[in-house]
Amino acid sequence: MHPYRSHTCGALNAEHVGETVRLSGWVHRKRDHGGVLFVDLRDHYGMTQIVADSDSPALAVLESLRAESVVTINGVVKARAEGTANANLPTGAIEVFAREAIVLSRAEELPLPVAGEQEYPEDIRLRYRFLDLRRETLHANIVKRTQIISDLRRGMEGAGFTEYSTPILTASSPEGARDFLVPSRIHAGKFYALPQAPQQYKQLLMVAGFDRYFQIAPCFRDEDPRADRLPGEFYQLDLEMSFVTQEEIWDTLEPVIASTFETFAEGKAVTPAGQWPRIPYSEAVLKYGTDKPDLRNPILIHDVGSHFETSGFGLFEKIVGSGGKVRAIPAPNTADKSRKFFDEMNEWARAEGHAGLGYVTRKGGEFGGPIAKNHGEEGMKALYDAMGLGPDDGCFFAAGKEEQAAKLAGLARTRVGDQLGLIAKDRYDFCWIVDFPFFEYNEDEKKVDFAHNPFSMPQGGLEALENQDPLTIKAFQYDAVCNGYEVASGSIRNQSPELMVKAFELTGLSQADVEERFGGLYRAFQYGAPPHGGAAFGIDRLVMLLCGAQNLREITLFPMNQRAEDLLMGAPSNAELKQLRELHIRVIEPQAKA
Amino acid sequence: MHPYRSHTCGALNAEHVGETVRLSGWVHRKRDHGGVLFVDLRDHYGMTQIVADSDSPALAVLESLRAESVVTINGVVKARAEGTANANLPTGAIEVFAREAIVLSRAEELPLPVAGEQEYPEDIRLRYRFLDLRRETLHANIVKRTQIISDLRRGMEGAGFTEYSTPILTASSPEGARDFLVPSRIHAGKFYALPQAPQQYKQLLMVAGFDRYFQIAPCFRDEDPRADRLPGEFYQLDLEMSFVTQEEIWDTLEPVIASTFETFAEGKAVTPAGQWPRIPYSEAVLKYGTDKPDLRNPILIHDVGSHFETSGFGLFEKIVGSGGKVRAIPAPNTADKSRKFFDEMNEWARAEGHAGLGYVTRKGGEFGGPIAKNHGEEGMKALYDAMGLGPDDGCFFAAGKEEQAAKLAGLARTRVGDQLGLIAKDRYDFCWIVDFPFFEYNEDEKKVDFAHNPFSMPQGGLEALENQDPLTIKAFQYDAVCNGYEVASGSIRNQSPELMVKAFELTGLSQADVEERFGGLYRAFQYGAPPHGGAAFGIDRLVMLLCGAQNLREITLFPMNQRAEDLLMGAPSNAELKQLRELHIRVIEPQAKA
Repeated sequence: MHPYRSHTCGALNAEHVGETVRLSGWVHRKRDHGGVLFVDLRDHYGMTQIVADSDSPALAVLESLRAESVVTINGVVKARAEGTANANLPTGAIEVFAREAIVLSRAEELPLPVAGEQEYPEDIRLRYRFLDLRRETLHANIVKRTQIISDLRRGMEGAGFTEYSTPILTASSPEGARDFLVPSRIHAGKFYALPQAPQQYKQLLMVAGFDRYFQIAPCFRDEDPRADRLPGEFYQLDLEMSFVTQEEIWDTLEPVIASTFETFAEGKAVTPAGQWPRIPYSEAVLKYGTDKPDLRNPILIHDVGSHFETSGFGLFEKIVGSGGKVRAIPAPNTADKSRKFFDEMNEWARAEGHAGLGYVTRKGGEFGGPIAKNHGEEGMKALYDAMGLGPDDGCFFAAGKEEQAAKLAGLARTRVGDQLGLIAKDRYDFCWIVDFPFFEYNEDEKKVDFAHNPFSMPQGGLEALENQDPLTIKAFQYDAVCNGYEVASGSIRNQSPELMVKAFELTGLSQADVEERFGGLYRAFQYGAPPHGGAAFGIDRLVMLLCGAQNLREITLFPMNQRAEDLLMGAPSNAELKQLRELHIRVIEPQAKA
Repeated sequence: MHPYRSHTCGALNAEHVGETVRLSGWVHRKRDHGGVLFVDLRDHYGMTQIVADSDSPALAVLESLRAESVVTINGVVKARAEGTANANLPTGAIEVFAREAIVLSRAEELPLPVAGEQEYPEDIRLRYRFLDLRRETLHANIVKRTQIISDLRRGMEGAGFTEYSTPILTASSPEGARDFLVPSRIHAGKFYALPQAPQQYKQLLMVAGFDRYFQIAPCFRDEDPRADRLPGEFYQLDLEMSFVTQEEIWDTLEPVIASTFETFAEGKAVTPAGQWPRIPYSEAVLKYGTDKPDLRNPILIHDVGSHFETSGFGLFEKIVGSGGKVRAIPAPNTADKSRKFFDEMNEWARAEGHAGLGYVTRKGGEFGGPIAKNHGEEGMKALYDAMGLGPDDGCFFAAGKEEQAAKLAGLARTRVGDQLGLIAKDRYDFCWIVDFPFFEYNEDEKKVDFAHNPFSMPQGGLEALENQDPLTIKAFQYDAVCNGYEVASGSIRNQSPELMVKAFELTGLSQADVEERFGGLYRAFQYGAPPHGGAAFGIDRLVMLLCGAQNLREITLFPMNQRAEDLLMGAPSNAELKQLRELHIRVIEPQAKA
């Protein structure tokens, strides 16, 4: 027999009754029933009930052990007594009568309980992560994470993609977030950087003719920790395709992502591949007040300024007259909501720093509230008819400069949907947001800047760059959004050296700047570059959605804390002087506090 | 029709004759046959012959293009004329008559030819890696590399392993090679390190109860470049199992590795799973003169010192008398080899810094050479009988202190096998080398040191550590070897805190040292650690063996050069002062040369 186990702790059932078996695992729980000891023995695969009574030498051994000790049990499988079977447990029909218990590893007093999963301070959880990871939910989340990634890999390979690993020690990227730097020992005073994303490498792969690339890619950004971003590293499903249009990219990715979601959604509905709405950026900002719309929320925002061009409600008339916008957020079936419901929405908007959220109530066709009163019944009816609202629907209004009105309307749409219970929690609703603006105006520097990715292809090509108002140019650039979260971002790339130089010129950079900052890529485009494009999905976000987790630490194996420390391994730590000397650097002591 | 391609350049064959098609790709070669232009159009999937004559507007477009420009061809599939078909090419039965050619990207004059693959200076190849990677052999090697890795992943998953990614920003490891350091911005004066291997993390995963881990793991060592090691990063198939014996690890891994090799060996024989010899370290050093034996070489070394204890050949008698060793390396069927063959072996041994390589010749049963003459016919016959050598077999002798004699014998075995053409080139011969010594004597520091991995379990446990001469203790430690290359290394780990402290004590380190250096792991072992063990396979080595490549740059996408520079991306590079200030470091200017 195997020295440690004939079966795992999840394998035995009624069919094994009478067999002599050997199990190894952790002492999850012990219950002493007066001379009879029950032990839940746990391993990665499951849990098996062990029984030892005073006839067995195992009793004394097991009694002496603390929870989480590791033990090998030699015993016999018995059917559980009538009424004590546990149908929720795969091994719940049997128990193992222990003839012998051999201690493999004794556990000290635990700093953190494994059974039960009560809340525990984060620093203790991270310092003793090896215990934390034994807890049921976290253990299951990590396994699910690995299964999701494995399934994505299979999906991408099935779609004709090949996984290529790109370098981790590479050059500093002048765009984007802050780099992690790695001092070079061989080249004094020079530094490698860890990649923020393999953007340039994947484009170089296309120029090298590899056609369909993907990678579960580690990415590194030295940013201050945020709730939705762990310090240090994160993973992307990064991909790129040659000789493609953006539509082909969407058509290719929808089946991969939808299939993985269907596999792990545990019965929740997933937008089927081929049916992901493709919503222009400007439409998304109007209808949902955001470029990350939660489509599970049925409320649609309407632009209703034209109704208030001449209105008894002077405030809106004035806003519209001065070029502002009025956006209406329906609140369906709110006839029996109290005045408090509406007023609290307005207070919330003010607390968020907005001027306020106007509203109209309606009950049995009768309008209420100051806006309705001033705007007049006829005008209100016309407005309601235009929006398709009914006799018991209320409505909120966000008014002001376009950007502010849209943003407030978006937040209000979410809040109204939440409070009215309109958000379908049992769905994963996907869409693409497309046609992002290529440029934006940088108010601080009073100049045109790239709105997103400088490597994207402008719609209209050279013609547009030369003749169109830059701020009206759209890019072949898109995001994938699920339930209100951006899960991917991508674009068709600008692979023309002329177009690249022209686009950068509009942001005030010269050809020399382009050559200096993106030399590898710019050089590559001189020697036969195929049209190409791609995207990158945030693995952590996909996993959080599928695990229903709210915190990245609940889906990450060995996360750092919010101070960017690995409490388990003790990183970062002091370096030896010899190491620093070899790397040609010296630490600058912080100024003493006066 | 798709704007870029109805088919790839590898898809068309005789069945498509008459179809209107669209292809996109690179202009691989052009041949002008007097008014008729032939273009080999290449993409990732293959090559298709394009024809344009003066009837087609495509002619002028294609004539104007340099090689490696990217172009879309609209045309009609035609059968090639009798006698011009190319049976070696999947598309060799057809050609596409171009009706239209659309230029997608014009190539400048190439710094490096893609077609033809002649040798080119490495720095140009690396600077223009995107061109180099289009070349047939390198492109195929990279694709094969990705397929091998993908196949290994499938194999590991099939064997019940789960892939977990471990952190890349972690703590400096006090053992082993030099770390790459990453300055912390948030913690002034402190540093992260890139992992030399995920050794501690994978053991922590076992302690956390995950049972079977693997990872295609990036590893980082800041070592001076060598022929068989690229600067910077490399990949390991890293794995770990709980509740295992070393035999179970070997039994589990042999099918995975053998299956991948069978898939990619292109007909070469592979040692079948279940039949990998398990050779104790001491036996390997005796029989093969190395712990990395090439089993394709049939020659076995013999320890023949006992034959020379009293001998007319005084040199060997003296060596044996003073505790030295004489190792015999048979040179089978060398009756008709000239004296020069034997003398040159001796000269080679001297050139390598050894005292020399004695030899005996034999032809038709008659011995020749000074050793045979002095040792005497009777003695020689006894020696030959003991080794099972025949009447036409020669023999070399390596004599001296045990380590030197073994090493020279091993090198001579390889050289003799090579020169006699005895090494079976059409095989992948695997074995495990097992029972490595746990400790070794450090002559410089005059103390006992770990011979390999300090985390390994000593054979005999605490009993052995307390009562046995440390230098005779073996470890549950093993290597996998293929064709003379170490392809993997692994061990059963020491998961007992007491044993760990005791083992380190023997090397002069205290419990406090262990806690300081391996705090995470040492702490983990206090709270229920399962017996566990594993291994790590060198991905680069496996791929080199399967691609028949001699240089790591032939199987690596974007390698650095021997000066640890990425010539394509320009790394390492200068950092901005602002970056260094944020990281609390300053560059130490190199001393001016006097």
